[in-house]
Amino acid sequence: MSDETRDTVYIGKKPIMAYVTSTLIQLASLPSVSIKARGMTIGRAVDVAQIISRKTENAGYTIGDIRIGSESLESQDGRTRNVSTIEIEVKRNQ
Amino acid sequence: MSDETRDTVYIGKKPIMAYVTSTLIQLASLPSVSIKARGMTIGRAVDVAQIISRKTENAGYTIGDIRIGSESLESQDGRTRNVSTIEIEVKRNQ
Repeated sequence: MSDETRDTVYIGKKPIMAYVTSTLIQLASLPSVSIKARGMTIGRAVDVAQIISRKTENAGYTIGDIRIGSESLESQDGRTRNVSTIEIEVKRNQ
Repeated sequence: MSDETRDTVYIGKKPIMAYVTSTLIQLASLPSVSIKARGMTIGRAVDVAQIISRKTENAGYTIGDIRIGSESLESQDGRTRNVSTIEIEVKRNQ
């Protein structure tokens, strides 16, 4: 993992607090960060955004734009299938 | 299940196309419908909204506001835990 500043956190299968921490680290130096997930991890992206906005209620960060979409993936048997995606913006309060 | 017109479809554990059908039936008589889900079913709510907007691309229906939140639930052992929620508006094209 690199330690450069990015504006996107991709949700995978690590413990949820790992993504909360990554997002908070990015937010220390950036005004807004996108939390992205697809398929099975979409619910976890919502959890991460909610934990951040709840725990920093006064400090604080808020949820911005939320976008959903879908991507075509080729599965191992060569067939194409669609997978849903989500992108949640978390930003510093004005 | 009642057949009255409601403006909300709650996502549970039925096959995904059951919710696509319910939502389309509601949209036949209403200008917009909210798809709501919490916890593990959040990803499925995104799937339902995406299937509808993709399959009716020209017809058609589009995704409106998306809201995320959290609810406190009391679990069987008496402890409170937070569960994330999502609400996706699907509406008729202007």
